Amino acid sequence: MKKILNAPADYVDEMLDGLVAAHPEFYRLHGDSHRVIARATTGRTGKVGIVTGGGSGHLPVFTGYVGPGLLDACAIGDVFASPSAEQMADAIRAADMGAGVLRLYGNYGGDVMNFDMAGDLVEFDDIRCTTVQLADDVASAPPGEREKRRGVAGMVYAFKIAGAAAEAGLDLDGVTRVAQKAADACRSVGAALSPCTVPQAGRPTFEIGEDEMEMGMGIHGEPGVWRDKLRPADAIAEEMMDRLLADIPVGRGDRVSVLVNSLGATPPEELYILYRVVKARLEEAGASIVMPLVGRYATSMEMAGVSFTLIKLDEELEGFLRAPCDCAFWRVG
Amino acid sequence: MKKILNAPADYVDEMLDGLVAAHPEFYRLHGDSHRVIARATTGRTGKVGIVTGGGSGHLPVFTGYVGPGLLDACAIGDVFASPSAEQMADAIRAADMGAGVLRLYGNYGGDVMNFDMAGDLVEFDDIRCTTVQLADDVASAPPGEREKRRGVAGMVYAFKIAGAAAEAGLDLDGVTRVAQKAADACRSVGAALSPCTVPQAGRPTFEIGEDEMEMGMGIHGEPGVWRDKLRPADAIAEEMMDRLLADIPVGRGDRVSVLVNSLGATPPEELYILYRVVKARLEEAGASIVMPLVGRYATSMEMAGVSFTLIKLDEELEGFLRAPCDCAFWRVG
Repeated sequence: MKKILNAPADYVDEMLDGLVAAHPEFYRLHGDSHRVIARATTGRTGKVGIVTGGGSGHLPVFTGYVGPGLLDACAIGDVFASPSAEQMADAIRAADMGAGVLRLYGNYGGDVMNFDMAGDLVEFDDIRCTTVQLADDVASAPPGEREKRRGVAGMVYAFKIAGAAAEAGLDLDGVTRVAQKAADACRSVGAALSPCTVPQAGRPTFEIGEDEMEMGMGIHGEPGVWRDKLRPADAIAEEMMDRLLADIPVGRGDRVSVLVNSLGATPPEELYILYRVVKARLEEAGASIVMPLVGRYATSMEMAGVSFTLIKLDEELEGFLRAPCDCAFWRVG
Repeated sequence: MKKILNAPADYVDEMLDGLVAAHPEFYRLHGDSHRVIARATTGRTGKVGIVTGGGSGHLPVFTGYVGPGLLDACAIGDVFASPSAEQMADAIRAADMGAGVLRLYGNYGGDVMNFDMAGDLVEFDDIRCTTVQLADDVASAPPGEREKRRGVAGMVYAFKIAGAAAEAGLDLDGVTRVAQKAADACRSVGAALSPCTVPQAGRPTFEIGEDEMEMGMGIHGEPGVWRDKLRPADAIAEEMMDRLLADIPVGRGDRVSVLVNSLGATPPEELYILYRVVKARLEEAGASIVMPLVGRYATSMEMAGVSFTLIKLDEELEGFLRAPCDCAFWRVG
């Protein structure tokens, strides 16, 4: 797939310059690294800060979700690469409003290591930090090894719900508890149809036949559970729902939200075709769907494919999910 | 490019079923054709109705923009094919709230012919209709033959501005005048990097080399002004801005809005890289940018490429552009 870029080494810096130039009401560059985005208007003093970080190439994840009712700051690495511990520490400082900072991010080795180090770096700043990691990708490890799972689009729900909890005035322990509950209530699965190209590598992340798909593939091209001929939309959706519902049973009276997400190139038309099956399966199980999300919420640049994320809600999670939020990519309320 | 679908013949019907299932607060199917979408909640009696129509495969255009402060109804054809005159007539009826209906759509032969016939069909219903056609694609005909130009992403501005004028209570002549002023103030240009696949054809709309791009290509793959090696992002943006500003000069004190639009697969990261140049060029000319739009507002399914749309605003147009609107794809205010 062809990319529109200048020098590959400038991809992320130029992208962030453009993001801030287009949406100065939401985003600003913080500090000197050119890799930390903070809210244009800092949250109120005494609000718990929420910070995330991760590689570029997933817009709106991660940077896009900085905004009122969502995140306070984000450290951005190169495409599919972790930001440094120093950048993450800067993001924690940008997010601090005196009530401590929740580090809320996906379970990837580099991010975990660097966010841990970043926590050590800000100890001298007297900023108390907690951590919640997303590990929602059911295809990446069996239920008995949930802590090994990768974090994918479930992050979107966790950002939204934790952001609303912080905005509502919960303290650091409260926001952390709610974020952990949201993370625990999320399950995701993805299916890829095509690779994407990391600018600095200049070649596709993997090879796949013109008539093939891969079930369970990760957002950086991590191997999935099977590769086979491309199946019809309804068969893909049925299998993805089978995998989610086997991992987190949903029954009569349950309230859930669901995200039908394009990995990038797959158009909304095809997401809506899939959504028919998602809705039928959840209603068949007796569940009520709250605020379904259909679109590009967590991507891998121009990768073709989809992911489904299911979150089982209790009253508290549903309230925070429905609360207002605002950023250049998502607005609720 | 691979597509996620069931039977190709069911693509549009299933897409519309999913759209309405996901967003019942915005959309409903009207009438028996299964190809007319109307607002879930009809506008107030005495409001001018605005109707559009065109082929599928361009979400959010056309159907997505049905909603408060935008359109009242839309007739949807097969992928890249006009809806029938009967379907358009049904959409006009769905949009009628007793104050007449503006037909607001892009300049394509089939759409023009069928919307004309649809106007004849609703004469018996005593619905007064006016027409404004978008012809904003500067690459499709020289300035002396503007009436031959195709309508592309300028439609997004026209829907927004006309929708706000109708919501503000202007009568049919007033809404039509404002819509025509918006259409006249828009210029667009596109550049394609890859084709897309029409489901029922099952093959890409055109062939293009792995290292090539085409400047000025239309959203259905209509020939552009040159095809050559893929250029760097800044060079592409400079040429696209040259072409727009040659057609609609912008100078000191002017107020403009600009849409940097992905045709589908091209990710937001690359749109933001392009936006740096767009902003620099407009500010260099002395213009102020109002409410820039960066994202996927008018697409061709999974086509890679971008379009820029520039609209020169006066006070009236700017007011309507900034007015509230709401639909599943765009929210202002």
